Amino acid sequence: MTTDLPADVMVPFAVHVDFQSGALTPDPVILRRSHADLAGYFVNESDAPGEDEMYAVHEIRVPATNNNLLSSTTVLQPGTVGGEYFMTKGHFHATRDRAEIYLTLSGQGLLVMALEDGTTQTKEMRPGIVNYVPGHWAHRSVNTGDVPLVFYAVYIGDAGYDYATIADQGFPVIVVEGEDGPEVVPNPRYTGR
Amino acid sequence: MTTDLPADVMVPFAVHVDFQSGALTPDPVILRRSHADLAGYFVNESDAPGEDEMYAVHEIRVPATNNNLLSSTTVLQPGTVGGEYFMTKGHFHATRDRAEIYLTLSGQGLLVMALEDGTTQTKEMRPGIVNYVPGHWAHRSVNTGDVPLVFYAVYIGDAGYDYATIADQGFPVIVVEGEDGPEVVPNPRYTGR
Ligand SMILES: [Mn+2]
Ligand SMILES: [Mn+2]
Repeated sequence: MTTDLPADVMVPFAVHVDFQSGALTPDPVILRRSHADLAGYFVNESDAPGEDEMYAVHEIRVPATNNNLLSSTTVLQPGTVGGEYFMTKGHFHATRDRAEIYLTLSGQGLLVMALEDGTTQTKEMRPGIVNYVPGHWAHRSVNTGDVPLVFYAVYIGDAGYDYATIADQGFPVIVVEGEDGPEVVPNPRYTGR
Repeated sequence: MTTDLPADVMVPFAVHVDFQSGALTPDPVILRRSHADLAGYFVNESDAPGEDEMYAVHEIRVPATNNNLLSSTTVLQPGTVGGEYFMTKGHFHATRDRAEIYLTLSGQGLLVMALEDGTTQTKEMRPGIVNYVPGHWAHRSVNTGDVPLVFYAVYIGDAGYDYATIADQGFPVIVVEGEDGPEVVPNPRYTGR
């Protein structure tokens, strides 16, 4: 047998995921996004955004290369801002064609996806659902429930992030609190089309 | 804004995973592996292998390209063959450097990994544990419990499979039933080193 291993072979490791809280053990990299961090993302920011946490991302970091898988849990709090449900900023992948998988662990919500031509897709998020986000689709999660929305996301290491396009243009649709529950409606401030 | 989408952009989709049974909804691709399919994999095949199922793989199929993520649930039954716990065949990735993530959903077991130079790593599998299988490590799951071991695996679309190396050489270690539980011991039939 020929053995031709590269010098930098990684060592296998394990992390525990709490399906209810989204906490990892060990949990060395937690990115916290406050209401203030989301300033400008909601159509009606009736209240002054504060330092309360809107969501946290618990990352399992590996080298960001095309042979590795990056993954994280996201814990998105329940609530609304000016009638819009709490949500993540959302992004395209910098390498546009890279896919991502979401596995919802706890809570309920909507996964809003959009192509650069303005086409949208909205899918339910609830425990046990795997959402496949193919390449080219920007993705944002929205908590439409009363408890934290917790999901585990896996993506190809070299996907990268393009937050700027969404920060600049918005998503084509927003998710608002209607009389009979969540409604997906056009975003009056969307400038991408 | 410039829009330059390829013609073959995929449409987002969703699949439900039952964390207890491993069943998918919808569940169009189920690969079943019987005891007979594993003939030759166990050191002591005391009983004639039959058509009973040892494990089933429920696949979420997408194009097997480097921008997509393939994923599946595996349901590995409990039991032993000649003192060795039921296990999957195990494989290297044909594209050796591609990583894989296992998330255990139900049951308990061991994830046995090996490099081509005979180095091994064995990690616990239990609900909530994410096992990171870096590139270059062959991987096999072993059910050391009394109930089915159910896990969700995600890997890069172009990883591919090399089952032949393991079928030919075996893993450097096997997992056997000891007096105080599972024991990881050298495989007397391993020919890879
Ligand atoms: Mn992403
Ligand atoms: Mn594999």
